[in-house]
Amino acid sequence: MSKHLQHDLDRLKKETLAMGSMVEHAINKAIRALLDRDAELAREVSQGDDAIDRKELEVEDMCLKILALHQPVAGDLRYLVAVLKVNNDLERMGDLAGNIAERAMFLASQAPLAIELEIERMVESVRTMVSESLDALVEQDPVLARRVCREDDAVDAMQRRMFDTLTALMMRDPSTVERAVQLLSVTRHLERIADSATNIAEDVVFVVEGEVIRHAPHPERARGSVR
Amino acid sequence: MSKHLQHDLDRLKKETLAMGSMVEHAINKAIRALLDRDAELAREVSQGDDAIDRKELEVEDMCLKILALHQPVAGDLRYLVAVLKVNNDLERMGDLAGNIAERAMFLASQAPLAIELEIERMVESVRTMVSESLDALVEQDPVLARRVCREDDAVDAMQRRMFDTLTALMMRDPSTVERAVQLLSVTRHLERIADSATNIAEDVVFVVEGEVIRHAPHPERARGSVR
Repeated sequence: MSKHLQHDLDRLKKETLAMGSMVEHAINKAIRALLDRDAELAREVSQGDDAIDRKELEVEDMCLKILALHQPVAGDLRYLVAVLKVNNDLERMGDLAGNIAERAMFLASQAPLAIELEIERMVESVRTMVSESLDALVEQDPVLARRVCREDDAVDAMQRRMFDTLTALMMRDPSTVERAVQLLSVTRHLERIADSATNIAEDVVFVVEGEVIRHAPHPERARGSVR
Repeated sequence: MSKHLQHDLDRLKKETLAMGSMVEHAINKAIRALLDRDAELAREVSQGDDAIDRKELEVEDMCLKILALHQPVAGDLRYLVAVLKVNNDLERMGDLAGNIAERAMFLASQAPLAIELEIERMVESVRTMVSESLDALVEQDPVLARRVCREDDAVDAMQRRMFDTLTALMMRDPSTVERAVQLLSVTRHLERIADSATNIAEDVVFVVEGEVIRHAPHPERARGSVR
């Protein structure tokens, strides 16, 4: 690999990680706003989304320039295509953090729902998946990446349980409908953030091992023997 | 451009359009299953998703091979990167069609909700957006693509109205909660399909005019004077 290409790839990596850290920050803030019922903090998340959008365009532009200038092949090409997709997923995660923040603003203005929810456990799982998917990206670690993919099933299951709990609550007490529907949205956004973290993890496996684990049944994704 | 590259790009275009038509078909089927309360048809949509997933991998693989073999620059490179993104959006639209089909199966097993809903109008708008975004892609038509972007605002507004209608219904009559929540999911899936159609339209504008209209305020997206 030429020195120039290496230099440009290093710069790209730095920018992608900067984007990742902005997005992780936004997600953590949105979650904190939700749990702490902090409307002010929620507003900050919405305001930060422009910076994430700008960073997405920068990273994509950088990828295109490297492709055009160096015409990389094999592993480098695979890496660049993966960065394009990771970048896209990160931007989507930023949007979802914004959506959670909006719901958090509404919920902060209402009386809290008096039920035990799995939301804190779900939040913890999603947060871990986001952080581990970014670590897997930095370290190019397929073992960690596969762990993220496995965790996605647990988050899906939590989302289904939250759905049942919230639906039952609304039927029992119609005065909870508005808040429960908003909270249901939050759990969907969390689940989609987990999906995006899984996409990133799958891209890491693809870059490092050249193996596509998208669309594979989960046990095989975990085992890594998918064709 | 070399004859070989032209030949490969033609083949790629054909495959992308085949993928587009599979996805459009799935969406229309899911919608029909929902409106006609046809559980059998809904099941067909779920079964068809594997074929869409396989096609996604094929198209992506083709893009990677063309990039590695021909190392295209300028317009061709931009086109290939756009195809990678369009491909991704199409796969997501296929998933969303599957989600709608699942909800349709549940709703077909229940008594219909006795309220006038905007759902048919929303469905019609989304269907038009999907079909026009694919036409814009085939014809590389930025005027049509910008029309798709504008229509997205109308779909968002419809989704918000459906949200209010369904929330009010649940509060008035708790026996509707389960069905209303499922219908609310359908409207969210429809809205996300519209978002993906918008992404495709934005990619068409990017390929043809070299202009990024993502993240621009909508009137400017429509006018095409965004910086």
